[in-house]
Amino acid sequence: MVLGAGFGGLDAVAGLAGADVDVTVVDRNNFHTFQPLLYQVATAGLNAADVAYPVRAIFSGQGNVRFRRAEITGIDFDRRRLRLVAGELAYDHLVIAVGASTNFFGVPGAAEHGFPLYVLPDAVRLRNHILSRFEAASADPGLVDDGALAVTVVGGGATGVEVAGALVELFDRVLRKDFAELDLSRATVTVLEARDELLGPFRPGSRRHALEELRRRGVRVRLGCTVQSVDGTRVCLAGGEVIRSHTLVWAAGVRANPVVAGLGLETGPGGRVVVNPDLRVPGHPEVFAVGDVALVRDAPTGRVLAQVAPVAMQSGRHAARQIRRLRAGLPTEGFRYLDKGTMATIGRRAAVADLPMRINLQGTPGWLAWLGLHLVFLVGFRNRLSVLLNWFWNYLTWDRGPRLILHTEGPDALGPPDAPDAPDAPDALGPSDAPDAPDSGVDRSAAS
Amino acid sequence: MVLGAGFGGLDAVAGLAGADVDVTVVDRNNFHTFQPLLYQVATAGLNAADVAYPVRAIFSGQGNVRFRRAEITGIDFDRRRLRLVAGELAYDHLVIAVGASTNFFGVPGAAEHGFPLYVLPDAVRLRNHILSRFEAASADPGLVDDGALAVTVVGGGATGVEVAGALVELFDRVLRKDFAELDLSRATVTVLEARDELLGPFRPGSRRHALEELRRRGVRVRLGCTVQSVDGTRVCLAGGEVIRSHTLVWAAGVRANPVVAGLGLETGPGGRVVVNPDLRVPGHPEVFAVGDVALVRDAPTGRVLAQVAPVAMQSGRHAARQIRRLRAGLPTEGFRYLDKGTMATIGRRAAVADLPMRINLQGTPGWLAWLGLHLVFLVGFRNRLSVLLNWFWNYLTWDRGPRLILHTEGPDALGPPDAPDAPDAPDALGPSDAPDAPDSGVDRSAAS
Repeated sequence: MVLGAGFGGLDAVAGLAGADVDVTVVDRNNFHTFQPLLYQVATAGLNAADVAYPVRAIFSGQGNVRFRRAEITGIDFDRRRLRLVAGELAYDHLVIAVGASTNFFGVPGAAEHGFPLYVLPDAVRLRNHILSRFEAASADPGLVDDGALAVTVVGGGATGVEVAGALVELFDRVLRKDFAELDLSRATVTVLEARDELLGPFRPGSRRHALEELRRRGVRVRLGCTVQSVDGTRVCLAGGEVIRSHTLVWAAGVRANPVVAGLGLETGPGGRVVVNPDLRVPGHPEVFAVGDVALVRDAPTGRVLAQVAPVAMQSGRHAARQIRRLRAGLPTEGFRYLDKGTMATIGRRAAVADLPMRINLQGTPGWLAWLGLHLVFLVGFRNRLSVLLNWFWNYLTWDRGPRLILHTEGPDALGPPDAPDAPDAPDALGPSDAPDAPDSGVDRSAAS
Repeated sequence: MVLGAGFGGLDAVAGLAGADVDVTVVDRNNFHTFQPLLYQVATAGLNAADVAYPVRAIFSGQGNVRFRRAEITGIDFDRRRLRLVAGELAYDHLVIAVGASTNFFGVPGAAEHGFPLYVLPDAVRLRNHILSRFEAASADPGLVDDGALAVTVVGGGATGVEVAGALVELFDRVLRKDFAELDLSRATVTVLEARDELLGPFRPGSRRHALEELRRRGVRVRLGCTVQSVDGTRVCLAGGEVIRSHTLVWAAGVRANPVVAGLGLETGPGGRVVVNPDLRVPGHPEVFAVGDVALVRDAPTGRVLAQVAPVAMQSGRHAARQIRRLRAGLPTEGFRYLDKGTMATIGRRAAVADLPMRINLQGTPGWLAWLGLHLVFLVGFRNRLSVLLNWFWNYLTWDRGPRLILHTEGPDALGPPDAPDAPDAPDALGPSDAPDAPDSGVDRSAAS
């Protein structure tokens, strides 16, 4: 039984291919989301469907896999049963891979007014909101002075850098034409980072390059800058300064999915589930926790690993291998992380890549490496084709396609278009508004 | 001033290219929807973004066009002002092209439980609902006996025929693999048509061919069959018979957008605005009504024209030409409709096309004609490429891509997945639940 169809869950399932076990994947969505490209959906570079792929289609060739679309309410570890909103599911082995949710660090107003970028609806909502503010300013130019076109990005990790770089390109190249009646010099992008440099986990050369390149492209980067409180139109900084900005992208970090808080398991920083070196949950030898939800360590060094896709994939694969060993009567092994490097893209022909053997790529080579790698990892040949087509088109024409304000559900779907779109209630798996100490601050995107 | 960015509105704007007038397009969405392909979005053949294109991008090359995203609340004809939810807009000439909304003909339960297919969110909701019922049946196989996999299509016009044909292909070829645990023979598609043949406006040979071809593909077609009432799981027929079916596609016809009911204009059958032969609204010589919202007649014959895309496009173009004539001091002309034929697709390599000069195409030639024509008319080169890619992929692999249950807004977005998705409240432009006499019954899709 694998709980969660993110990177960790998918690799756990794939690692059980051909094994003599029945695998059930449980997720509340019927699709996997390719999270590293969510920022491109948010900035109208890709369609939502380009970064999502149906779980049943992914495993249609793997005979021992079933899918169950369900929301869990708890786990009965003694009876080895998953409790669902409707019914229960029994398991012999369980891999918990429910991922993370946005960490608002208790900043007043952030959960209500900040736009996170962790799940697919986040990306669509952010795109809808930014375009709606431009439409509102077009109808009422006075809103420009109020900050309708200004975007503030909280967090200078990979997600913050990538979304900021993509936003200035969207503004300069696309919306400048679409909204010829507006003064696009007022469409500013400001990155606020609490530490004194961007891209903390990257090597010094990459950090400096990212900072210079973002500034060269017109992004305002403010280092050593802490957010005190926010509302829908204002960002208040620690020193008392107030930024007028109708859009607040919250890229400051994540914490473990709060659904695990109610499971009675030991948790560490960021609410992450403490695991043994073999990734099993202490006291439950048939339960593994992998990926963002777990406090995964590299067994040989004891180092806590970041909440990034490669760690999720490798830890999921590791859990599958251990389940095979346990069924064969073999002892489990400690998890060893193979660091293949980290990447972040800044924009058209600009990226930084810290690769093994101290290889650093920047500029066009970094960007091409980033492109290729993300294409290889995108699930599904059809999605790869579609993404490639979109990117190629964007590169040639500076156009972007899906700049649609598309509401498909709920009362907002047909409501008045001029009301600012408030982001939704937090994650359905449980309350996520509990304040929590800042964790490592490491961000979402990295290369495997 | 052009109100509405559908086929009628877009062609009115395009017809004013180069004219010495300022054109403002008003729509509550920032995109145009290519309605003839909505059924493919509903059946997971295309992405929502493939059939939508930003209005600002369409007219970026036409210097005299502005766009205003707004919802109208009324029109002050005396002061020549559009009343918006926020503010007013003045006009010299006005083209009303607000389209239609679904006609539920007062059937009890239809507005609450039927899934129409007229706007883009309709298509996404229908797709989400069908896939959700399959997921629910996978979790609780008892639901199959209750009709969870059965779809009933009300209306045997072009939309009904097209959606029914696409559904059996989706079930037989795609969901049969995705849901190997279900008995897909229970995934039935039933078309209910009140008259005694399908595709009323088509030529007899095409009608017969469509009926035979649908039945050959496994669609249950019931002619002379009237719906008495519906709820979320049952369809009650006039004779007392009850069909168990959790999905009801409402393709029985449309009526004029109810927003015009409050304008004090004379309306005819289906709530359509009565217009003079030149398409001007009686008593308001500066106001035109075109497309689905208007009771458009062919001036030479006096024949009332169907609410289909080619009529909308040609009438929009006509209004633009008359505005040019009025500004040049010339008299207006009556609207002449050039009938270029009608088409409906039944599925892979099957379509019927009634072309001029009594040319009828069926089967593969009809299907190829349909493909080419819809590609030519899809707005935007990028969308054409993406649609072509999707179609080519579907043809080669029998796969379909975007079978995602994707809620992006509102309380449902993160709610429990097992609850049946109720369709939304009716159209925001006004109440659409007023019973109304059946109009011509002519359907939505046709060729220009």
